[in-house]
Amino acid sequence: MTYGLFTGFTARRGRGAELLDALLAAADALRADPACLHYVVGAGEDDPDAVWVWEAWTDRGAHDAALEPPEARAAIARARPLLAGSAGQTPVRLRGGKGLPADG
Amino acid sequence: MTYGLFTGFTARRGRGAELLDALLAAADALRADPACLHYVVGAGEDDPDAVWVWEAWTDRGAHDAALEPPEARAAIARARPLLAGSAGQTPVRLRGGKGLPADG
Repeated sequence: MTYGLFTGFTARRGRGAELLDALLAAADALRADPACLHYVVGAGEDDPDAVWVWEAWTDRGAHDAALEPPEARAAIARARPLLAGSAGQTPVRLRGGKGLPADG
Repeated sequence: MTYGLFTGFTARRGRGAELLDALLAAADALRADPACLHYVVGAGEDDPDAVWVWEAWTDRGAHDAALEPPEARAAIARARPLLAGSAGQTPVRLRGGKGLPADG
């Protein structure tokens, strides 16, 4: 079951750009992981310290496993001091659509 | 500026599967639109009547324009009777990551 996850972070004031850079580095680290289909990051339209991540994975287990390696733990540790809070997470059982690799 | 949009819908009770089918048909109609990068639909993990859409577009204007053609208006008209409400929309200024076509 393809797994989607939309996550919101609130960066400490003025630190949104650094948080985006940290998340873009995390996305780069995931390029070699075939189970990671999407890992897209951006900022709020009106608030550069509101940071959002959209992820799609082949399955939830692959997502959870990707948080475990030392490089992932290091990336999380780098991001944590930039965070003021969370705007929540929405997990989604993906049914299909445009832009998933299986679509061609 | 690549434009992302995460939208939540609440289907009328028991109508989530129909709403998903209507949104998958909308995704099919967007396959020919090169400005639409992602249009992925799914349901809540614990609530099949909670329906979510993740979209990525080359720019916001392309998204807005895609709502205008007669086929799009017809698709919206088909979906509307299935809706009980909205769980909101989050627009995102996308910075990059894995899974956008420019990534290769």
